[in-house]
Amino acid sequence: MTVAADLAALWGIGRDRVRGGWSRHVFTREDAELRAWFVDRATGLGLDVTTDRNGNSWAWWGAPGSDAVVCGSHLDSVPGGGQYDGPLGVASALAAVERLKARDVRPRRPFAVAVFAEEEGSRFGAACLGSRLLTGAIAPERALALTDGDGTTFAEAATGASVDRRHIGRDQEALARIGLFLELHVEQGRALVDLDAAVGVASAIDAHGRWRLRFEGQANHAGTTRMADRHDPMVAAARFVLAAQEIARKRHGVRATVGRIEPVPGGTNVVASSATAWLDVRAGEDRETRTAVDEILRRASECAAAEGCAVATTEESWSSRVAFDPLLAKQFSHALGDAPLLPTGAGHDAGVLAAAGVPTAMLFVRNPTGVSHSPDEHAEDADCERGVDALVTCLTEALS
Amino acid sequence: MTVAADLAALWGIGRDRVRGGWSRHVFTREDAELRAWFVDRATGLGLDVTTDRNGNSWAWWGAPGSDAVVCGSHLDSVPGGGQYDGPLGVASALAAVERLKARDVRPRRPFAVAVFAEEEGSRFGAACLGSRLLTGAIAPERALALTDGDGTTFAEAATGASVDRRHIGRDQEALARIGLFLELHVEQGRALVDLDAAVGVASAIDAHGRWRLRFEGQANHAGTTRMADRHDPMVAAARFVLAAQEIARKRHGVRATVGRIEPVPGGTNVVASSATAWLDVRAGEDRETRTAVDEILRRASECAAAEGCAVATTEESWSSRVAFDPLLAKQFSHALGDAPLLPTGAGHDAGVLAAAGVPTAMLFVRNPTGVSHSPDEHAEDADCERGVDALVTCLTEALS
Repeated sequence: MTVAADLAALWGIGRDRVRGGWSRHVFTREDAELRAWFVDRATGLGLDVTTDRNGNSWAWWGAPGSDAVVCGSHLDSVPGGGQYDGPLGVASALAAVERLKARDVRPRRPFAVAVFAEEEGSRFGAACLGSRLLTGAIAPERALALTDGDGTTFAEAATGASVDRRHIGRDQEALARIGLFLELHVEQGRALVDLDAAVGVASAIDAHGRWRLRFEGQANHAGTTRMADRHDPMVAAARFVLAAQEIARKRHGVRATVGRIEPVPGGTNVVASSATAWLDVRAGEDRETRTAVDEILRRASECAAAEGCAVATTEESWSSRVAFDPLLAKQFSHALGDAPLLPTGAGHDAGVLAAAGVPTAMLFVRNPTGVSHSPDEHAEDADCERGVDALVTCLTEALS
Repeated sequence: MTVAADLAALWGIGRDRVRGGWSRHVFTREDAELRAWFVDRATGLGLDVTTDRNGNSWAWWGAPGSDAVVCGSHLDSVPGGGQYDGPLGVASALAAVERLKARDVRPRRPFAVAVFAEEEGSRFGAACLGSRLLTGAIAPERALALTDGDGTTFAEAATGASVDRRHIGRDQEALARIGLFLELHVEQGRALVDLDAAVGVASAIDAHGRWRLRFEGQANHAGTTRMADRHDPMVAAARFVLAAQEIARKRHGVRATVGRIEPVPGGTNVVASSATAWLDVRAGEDRETRTAVDEILRRASECAAAEGCAVATTEESWSSRVAFDPLLAKQFSHALGDAPLLPTGAGHDAGVLAAAGVPTAMLFVRNPTGVSHSPDEHAEDADCERGVDALVTCLTEALS
């Protein structure tokens, strides 16, 4: 089966009629449909599927065991996202198993295809939540208390999806089994286009983090409140959006984004009482990222004060720069005919596992426009198949 | 029964656990609960309740007929609004009927208490939708096509509430019956506090309108897209928010507000593809309002262009300045012991009916802080009772 055919099978799941593209969030009906597809496809290949204590799914080829080779990605999406970010890695892993089985390969190490939960952090705000819980990078109490936009807690949503909240947290047994983790992902930039290569190997993930800023003012009537009498948190948040852009622009290599903002109550005829903005900042090294964030948050206080508002800041997540295992990257690059090595500004479960000491590698499949986190995200069918070829090559090396 | 007791009976309906206060939107379960309360309370007073072709409710004292005196307001709220804006007028009208009945008054003209639908425009964006449809101030085709935040059309929502979409639109019969319309409302400013008066009479409603601006850019990954390569509509929208404030501040008496903004897709790790901002502008006279709006919209184009984005603007509503019937206002002010006459910056169904030629008056009840469209909106119980006294006085004049 081609990867394109697998992605086509998922086309109708989680279509977002308001935003366009797909909205597939953890522990929703759409998530259950995606998992059902995964179970169906994996069991069809003779794999045994289990769900771990943190809601991650594992399809085992043979018995689970130590020093396992694990290949996978995620099925959830950003709101209004594309078709490839996540599902391409899962479908490609399953396609690789199919090809290895067709060649009568018998793995000499335990092998599993994994699906990590809430990689995008689109529902509860913390990215790579499934892998972070598995490795203990986030405390279970903190994760359980996270809330979605409707006020539902992660604990409530997990319970609804038959995940036992009492057992959420670092899973030493599952973690210790992973001898090597390999994630294939659509590229989220244009480096491979420029290098004229269908597949590349990841060298590192840039430092990155998320901050939530709640600007607090005074709710009032838009028609009767004089401009001079206002404490308008929307104006404070607008100043902050411009400050973040200005600071990132003047610092080479820094990216700062406010892609989400929620005024409360959010009525056309209401001066808002508060406006919450989410800030995403990334740069190559930890220190340059932290320095940029410090400057942006300092400016946020000034933006609030200028409107007679207050601001409260919460760090939702922080990921230090992760260098993938350099020997593994070199080995895979060589096996793939000197495939290019490239760093990325996007976070991944592979980064979380690498930070936890798991030997980890990533493959990227060329993205003709570089556009990602958008309905326009694309990879050519032929490149997707070359991604599966590459996975098969790397897995053959690892499993033999 | 006191007005405070009636408002207390509504306390539990439409509590907003995310925003605080109350969110009561047209054709929702909460709306149905509010209407059920109205039917119950009105029939308890011996009134006959009907719903008109546009979803407005009428409680008739005796048979409907021409030259009727109609007293009422609305039950819907802004998102996260207060307890008084709307319900105070309905509860006060019912309390006035109760007192008139206790005094054995027999109205010499037909009389009704009316509840208008979607006064705040919080669900479908167009304020005073029920009264505008009734008077023909908005075309039924335009109203039916309006959508809420979930993509549900007004037509679909109306059908769900048993309102026949085929019969929506100007209701000549219902309109021609209204000989006088009187609306009591909590004040949405501090004029009565400064004047040391519990009740005032409205002289006019300022010109006001709503505009929707959709800034269009290019969705992309927040981590991998260089600052220089972005077309970020959130940045364009932020520039626009500041421009609207700046322009309103330099023009005496103009209020400009952006209280609602929706980036799409709205993910923390996504450069948005679009950001829609809602602009509310008001000033005393039509011309000064239009001139301010023109300047703000011109600047919106510049804000979009500066980020390589486009902007599309839609006028959601426009209401010219409305002067209430000056003789009626004078008569009621006199009957209330020379109650102060004051203009307001807030729109009301009374303004829509006045613009359609109905003899109309409004009474305001003192608001100690002036805060409105907020959970903090308040009126003292004693002032609410003085509002009912005033209604009884005016209605006695009108009905006898």
